[in-house]
Amino acid sequence: MSRLVMKFGGTSVADVGRIHEVARRVKAEADAGHEIAVVVSAMAGTTDQLINWTADVANLHDAREFDVVVSTGEQITSGLMAMALQDLGLTARSWLAWQLPVRTDGVHGSARILDIEAAEVGARMAKGEIAVMAGYQGLAPDNRLTTIGRGGTDTSAVALAAALGAERCDIYTDVEGVFTADPRIVAKARKLDKITYEEMLEMASQGAKVLQTRAVVMAMNHRVRVQVLSSFSEAPGTLVVDEDEIVEQQIVSGIAYSRDEAKITLRRVADRPGVAAAIFGPLAEANINVDMIVQNVSEDDETTDLTFTVTEADLDDAVKVINGARSEIGYEEVLYDNGVAKVSIIGVGMRSHAGVASRMFGTLAEKGINIEVISTSEIKVSVLINEEYTELALRALHHAYGLDGA
Amino acid sequence: MSRLVMKFGGTSVADVGRIHEVARRVKAEADAGHEIAVVVSAMAGTTDQLINWTADVANLHDAREFDVVVSTGEQITSGLMAMALQDLGLTARSWLAWQLPVRTDGVHGSARILDIEAAEVGARMAKGEIAVMAGYQGLAPDNRLTTIGRGGTDTSAVALAAALGAERCDIYTDVEGVFTADPRIVAKARKLDKITYEEMLEMASQGAKVLQTRAVVMAMNHRVRVQVLSSFSEAPGTLVVDEDEIVEQQIVSGIAYSRDEAKITLRRVADRPGVAAAIFGPLAEANINVDMIVQNVSEDDETTDLTFTVTEADLDDAVKVINGARSEIGYEEVLYDNGVAKVSIIGVGMRSHAGVASRMFGTLAEKGINIEVISTSEIKVSVLINEEYTELALRALHHAYGLDGA
Repeated sequence: MSRLVMKFGGTSVADVGRIHEVARRVKAEADAGHEIAVVVSAMAGTTDQLINWTADVANLHDAREFDVVVSTGEQITSGLMAMALQDLGLTARSWLAWQLPVRTDGVHGSARILDIEAAEVGARMAKGEIAVMAGYQGLAPDNRLTTIGRGGTDTSAVALAAALGAERCDIYTDVEGVFTADPRIVAKARKLDKITYEEMLEMASQGAKVLQTRAVVMAMNHRVRVQVLSSFSEAPGTLVVDEDEIVEQQIVSGIAYSRDEAKITLRRVADRPGVAAAIFGPLAEANINVDMIVQNVSEDDETTDLTFTVTEADLDDAVKVINGARSEIGYEEVLYDNGVAKVSIIGVGMRSHAGVASRMFGTLAEKGINIEVISTSEIKVSVLINEEYTELALRALHHAYGLDGA
Repeated sequence: MSRLVMKFGGTSVADVGRIHEVARRVKAEADAGHEIAVVVSAMAGTTDQLINWTADVANLHDAREFDVVVSTGEQITSGLMAMALQDLGLTARSWLAWQLPVRTDGVHGSARILDIEAAEVGARMAKGEIAVMAGYQGLAPDNRLTTIGRGGTDTSAVALAAALGAERCDIYTDVEGVFTADPRIVAKARKLDKITYEEMLEMASQGAKVLQTRAVVMAMNHRVRVQVLSSFSEAPGTLVVDEDEIVEQQIVSGIAYSRDEAKITLRRVADRPGVAAAIFGPLAEANINVDMIVQNVSEDDETTDLTFTVTEADLDDAVKVINGARSEIGYEEVLYDNGVAKVSIIGVGMRSHAGVASRMFGTLAEKGINIEVISTSEIKVSVLINEEYTELALRALHHAYGLDGA
């Protein structure tokens, strides 16, 4: 008897018909001899309705009350799913966050899961009862409900899998797994059988929306084997696992992109100690995340150009902050551009192979694509390019790294 | 500083606009210096939607999971109401049943409230915080959610008022109070300023839908002063209070009616010990409530006719039960009729006045209305009549007992 956590997102449980579909999949795994915990999201659309109500009541609302309202979506699905499983003759019961409990740090609206007390759930699973846990919710130290941020049910599922010592956490979604690139853009993209935690983390961070970054971090930290697969098909998905489970490494496993990027350049910044702090301190205080940062070598007049990227949504605020801090920073001019995209190649094989980045630059140069900013990590190279070249770049790189399918 | 519990039903909080309206009423009471707890129902329509989902998932569903799903309606309103109060500059927080907790006996779908731990809520109210409690829900001994039956939020509110030692429990609804008779039928019906618990209980039991019977029982047992009033008008409502608060008693305070009645007659039942048990035992086992019972004096052949009433919804089942128990009971024939209505006159003044019932019978006789069954209690006389005469009977009795308004 091995333990399995099965997580179903909003589109997978969008209505009563879908809930019955999902219940049949759960039954198949139960019939195969697994002990099963199911983790559910709110039915598609429900969370938006609840959020709209809170926004209609008050523009600035209490995050604690937001959590009271919005966590009902998952509560509803957990009860309905338990009923649907019972209707198939299975023993099942719902679990709300406060019942286990799922302890969080109490930051309302975006809490972090600290610990799940899964002893009773585990004991009941061992007796054949299927646990259906409401995702996305937790219990704060002050005995109030918290939600753990949009898409947090992935994290709930991985945390429960860790607490239960589950063999695997299956994340059912509306795509069939993790692909070498977005198949809507790259026709020859292939589904990966396996991907490492580190690669998945970079893929998620660099724009692939298949799995929440936080869930990957939690899986990596607790060494939970995660499978991403579709609840709308029977095809096997992609396993996210430890590096040593993958026998033959590709140099590049996947290519990610994000159009949600904006570039800000400060012209002729005084090249003196403390200038970076003068720029990025105020941005951090304004809760603006800065991604890529590039500083050119100093000019003869001891000034330099400094470029960084933020999300498109943060661009206006970031420019305001920079303008407000002009006298502290000291620059000639601020330029900005939101017509840019970030394209990233990702693969743990890079560590042991030279020339990976230069092949990327060469491939883009061949297609006449100018690189505006470069940033690298141990297993990733990202470039910022003109947004109009995104599709061209993805397809060229997909081919260049031998990822094209048959 | 006196404590006030304010309860708002589904139509009073039907949408975000209504929630803001209600919040303004709460603010007016807070500004007047009261410590306030608000108890809310689900937004009108929400509970039906939730119940429909549970019915769609499975015909026979687990009552525990039903409670998980359906209790979300009140949870949503509690959070939204707290936000709306905060938006008016008040300090407010929501309370879910498991947070106080509201302890129940654990009968899912129709639990009874055993106890409310209101110490923390009371302490916070004393500091000016408005408590917003989700009605209709409780916590079972096994740490699972229970609901307390349709309309149970009235009971939640009265129970909280008792636990808090509140000066009054205001039940806001869509009518202006308790009337001497249904104003849709009796144009001269008047709103009562005050009514005793006992009268209110009989009014509720005999068909007046303004307040849940269980809530009245709880108010009577804990001597909670209840006011029934409209959230759609500023008019004062009806106070439900102890008898000694009412200086001048009417002989008859109100007239109630119910068309949801069916009459069953067993002809020529053997008049022997144990026959009543043979009839009503099986009905009780089938969960059928019997209301009025009349047994005629024995005929020469030692048989008698026995008549009783059930709700219209129970009529078919009741006849089946009686047919099934024919050999044990022993009767010649079973007759039934659902074209009947029950009309009741109610008033604590009856205790000290003779001739109240005979005036009822005389008034009905004058109008040519035949009485089929009579049943009486200390403060009530009920008669079963042909349903077609309901309006005529109500107006005639209303006039006869001097209840007609100007």
